[in-house]
Amino acid sequence: MTPPLLIRPATTADHVAIWAILKPAIREGETYALPRDMSGADAVAYWMGPGREVFLADEERRAVGTYFLCANQRGGGGHVANCGYMTDPAARGRGIARGMAEHSLDEARRRGFLAMQFNFVVSSNESAVHLWHSLGFETVGRLPGAFRHPRFGYVDALVMFRRL
Amino acid sequence: MTPPLLIRPATTADHVAIWAILKPAIREGETYALPRDMSGADAVAYWMGPGREVFLADEERRAVGTYFLCANQRGGGGHVANCGYMTDPAARGRGIARGMAEHSLDEARRRGFLAMQFNFVVSSNESAVHLWHSLGFETVGRLPGAFRHPRFGYVDALVMFRRL
Repeated sequence: MTPPLLIRPATTADHVAIWAILKPAIREGETYALPRDMSGADAVAYWMGPGREVFLADEERRAVGTYFLCANQRGGGGHVANCGYMTDPAARGRGIARGMAEHSLDEARRRGFLAMQFNFVVSSNESAVHLWHSLGFETVGRLPGAFRHPRFGYVDALVMFRRL
Repeated sequence: MTPPLLIRPATTADHVAIWAILKPAIREGETYALPRDMSGADAVAYWMGPGREVFLADEERRAVGTYFLCANQRGGGGHVANCGYMTDPAARGRGIARGMAEHSLDEARRRGFLAMQFNFVVSSNESAVHLWHSLGFETVGRLPGAFRHPRFGYVDALVMFRRL
C-alpha cells in the first residue's frame, strides 16, 4: 500500500533534502530548462528564489517531492500563479506529482490566484503533459523547438493554463 | 526629418535616462506586467538584471528608447532569446521601437541564438502586436485573461516567437 503523503511548507532545514530531489532531474536535463551542471547551492537558490513558496511532500518522514508556488508575472499579471514540481525518481509512479499538483491548485486558490500557468512543459515529457491535461490544464501555446533535449534534439515546449 | 538613431550598450551612467524612459509605461500599467508603483531603483534593477544586456537608443545624444536582450531560458532552453523594449512616449511614431527590434534581432543572431520569444505581449497593445507581426513574429500562444488592464479589465496576453 502507498504510504500517506504529507505536504508541508519547506524550511531552510530542508535544503539538503530538496537538492537530493532536484539533482537527478537537473543532471538528466530532459524536463527542466536548467544547466545540467548546476551546483546544489544554485539549484536550491533557484527553487527557493524570491517570491516563491516551497513545499515538501513527505512519505513516512522521507522527502519524496517538492514544489514551488509563485505569481507568474507581477503587476497586471499577478493574478496568475506558476508552479514547478519535482519528484524523487525512486518514488515515481505513486501519484506524488498528482498529489502535489492538487495541493498546489488549492494553495493557489487560497491565495486568491485566478489561474495557473506553466510556461515551459517539455513536450517529450509525456507523463507531465498527461498529468496536466488530466488536471484540467489546456495547451495554450507551443514553442517550436524551444528545448534542446539531450537525447531527442530540439523538441517543442508547451505553455499550459487553467483557470482556478 | 527624423534624426538618425544610434543604438549602443547602456552603462551605469545611463540609469537616470533609462528610468525616465521606463517610468511612464510602468506608471500607466497598460503594456508591461510590472507593479505600477515600482520605484526607479527597482525598475532599473529589473531592466538591467542578471543575464541581461541593455541597449540605449539615442537621437542626437538624447535617449529615446532602451531594450534588454537575454536568454529566455537556461540549459536546454538557452538557444532562444528574449527582449523587452521601451520607447520614450514623446518620441513615439518615429520608428524607434522598430529600429531597436531590428537591432536586437541582429544582436541575438550574433550571439548564436536560434530564435526569439516574447512571453507576454498584452493583446490590447495593438501597435506592439502589429510591429512584431511585421517583423516576422508569429503568435504561438494566447494566455486567456492573463493581464488585468487598468482600463479594459482582463485581456489576453500573447506569446510570440520567430526563428532567427
